[in-house]
Amino acid sequence: MRLPSIAAVANPELALRLDAAINNKTKPLGSLGALESLAKQLGLIQQTTAISIDRPAIIVFAGDHGVVAEGISAFPQDVTWQMVENFLANGAAINVFARQNGAALHIVDAGVNHDFGPRAGLVDRKVARGTRNFALEPAMTARQCATALEHGAALAADLPGNVVGFGEMGIGNTTAAAALMHKLAGISVADCVGAGTGLSPQGVLRKQQVIEAAVERHAGVTDPLDVLATFGGFEIAMMAGAMLQAAALRKTLLIDGFIVTSALLVACRLAPAILDYCVFAHCSDEAGHRRMLEQLDARPLLQLGMRLGEGTGAALALPLLHAAVNFLNEMATFSSASVSEKSVGE
Amino acid sequence: MRLPSIAAVANPELALRLDAAINNKTKPLGSLGALESLAKQLGLIQQTTAISIDRPAIIVFAGDHGVVAEGISAFPQDVTWQMVENFLANGAAINVFARQNGAALHIVDAGVNHDFGPRAGLVDRKVARGTRNFALEPAMTARQCATALEHGAALAADLPGNVVGFGEMGIGNTTAAAALMHKLAGISVADCVGAGTGLSPQGVLRKQQVIEAAVERHAGVTDPLDVLATFGGFEIAMMAGAMLQAAALRKTLLIDGFIVTSALLVACRLAPAILDYCVFAHCSDEAGHRRMLEQLDARPLLQLGMRLGEGTGAALALPLLHAAVNFLNEMATFSSASVSEKSVGE
Repeated sequence: MRLPSIAAVANPELALRLDAAINNKTKPLGSLGALESLAKQLGLIQQTTAISIDRPAIIVFAGDHGVVAEGISAFPQDVTWQMVENFLANGAAINVFARQNGAALHIVDAGVNHDFGPRAGLVDRKVARGTRNFALEPAMTARQCATALEHGAALAADLPGNVVGFGEMGIGNTTAAAALMHKLAGISVADCVGAGTGLSPQGVLRKQQVIEAAVERHAGVTDPLDVLATFGGFEIAMMAGAMLQAAALRKTLLIDGFIVTSALLVACRLAPAILDYCVFAHCSDEAGHRRMLEQLDARPLLQLGMRLGEGTGAALALPLLHAAVNFLNEMATFSSASVSEKSVGE
Repeated sequence: MRLPSIAAVANPELALRLDAAINNKTKPLGSLGALESLAKQLGLIQQTTAISIDRPAIIVFAGDHGVVAEGISAFPQDVTWQMVENFLANGAAINVFARQNGAALHIVDAGVNHDFGPRAGLVDRKVARGTRNFALEPAMTARQCATALEHGAALAADLPGNVVGFGEMGIGNTTAAAALMHKLAGISVADCVGAGTGLSPQGVLRKQQVIEAAVERHAGVTDPLDVLATFGGFEIAMMAGAMLQAAALRKTLLIDGFIVTSALLVACRLAPAILDYCVFAHCSDEAGHRRMLEQLDARPLLQLGMRLGEGTGAALALPLLHAAVNFLNEMATFSSASVSEKSVGE
């Protein structure tokens, strides 16, 4: 994949105009907290003080993981395709939250170990029926990895709006994400591993041991794309490709939980400026996510103790993006509302 | 005011049914975090598993404070009535966020030091043109305090829906709220005092000294209603009355920031069961609010670093209430969606 070119958003002149617009609103200076930072970031991304949320979308990428053979998930692999069916039937949490908050929902088969056949509503970009077991061999070939990235980029390029949220489904993918986090963020495996969909403490320990052994086996792998191919999933690679393309098109990226953030770790090793386009939606309850966010210097909008994936955090954060846009566009200024400003010297 | 009777929501049989309904949804156990607790709380308040958000309202109570004569606010007192005009002209942050999230907005003059005359959209319940300066004498008479509580109760009784958010506007009211917090929660004045709308460190120190001297002057006052009358504001007393009545009618109370929580401190000294009906919307950046919330064992839904008041936190939390209602009503169950449950022993 030829990397799309991502421009940093820095623009001192526009930043000053955004600060002035925000500070002239009828409220104490800085009193809208994170919404003020968010409005400014959206302005810098969209290169205007007239910010907007246009046709927001959430893409859920689904894929299976060969490493489930090592017994690292609380749920059987079939749950991946069963949940894809649930998405298509509008029965999952992300369906409910996307509908509630006005996001178009796209479900992508990036590499599920199941034959769905042609299905209305399912975007078929299956690279293969699941990755290989990275405990034994690289999860994917370099060619498969490139294909996944390219499909992701093409999907992002086809989206009409200016905000994209990312979600995923894949039994075993917290194991892949933990391995990526260890390799790309240099955090110990123990600190990257959590309960996923609900492992027992013994299950978590086994998961940690599987990752440690695999990291040992593939010790020479350090290039970000090689790390992605060795430990990643098709859904993670496709997300990374979509993120890179979406940022290149100056869309705002809504970054959800643990697995989505692992895809972003890959993307920002390839193009660090992508972080300028990222709004962090939610800090997951999955152990390790907070550390990843800290390393990215990210401040998530929501901390609801969720650990569901699917892009649920992104969907739930959308009303806060609207709030940032609406206060900047709709609130009166001190002069327009004839409200006295702060007294001098207090 | 005769205290309305507030029933605790505890109902073990219904709680079990709510747990079962929540746990059968197609998601790992507990993975919707705070939304699951919220759905259960709404079920217990509404006495059903078929929960709903019906015609949510936000009431903003405005009042002035005699203690501003002591120089404890960064803004002049005129800003109270000017901001009321801004509310009526739809130009304030709460107008924007209430509109965005579908809440009916009610603006109440509880005791602003200004003659608005008859005004469309303004609910006139003015007890007096501001309280007296509690640095010198009690802020209100017992009769004024009772009147404010009664007006609040009547307003809450007239609301048609099942969710009420509370907001306030009143230059000087973080000083009143800090004094209430000190007296009712037993926290040192220094830990209750913050920058309000933007005091300098010297301003914060003066505010602290004013409160400490007033607390010394009124040292014998300990009964919650006497504390409210001595240090409170008309908007705070009216809110407390509205909260008590709304809980008695089994409405869900959306508790916003520092001043609103000080009104709740009064209400829950009078009727502790009111806490069962409270959803805490946002942890304010105003120093002291976090401590108040800790003492109430409250876990706010949002932490956006805001410190604006007006009920803005309540309005911004509404989509999360809808999310809690919608996941419980709309998500598929494991059996309805034919999704495999967790494997045994993992």
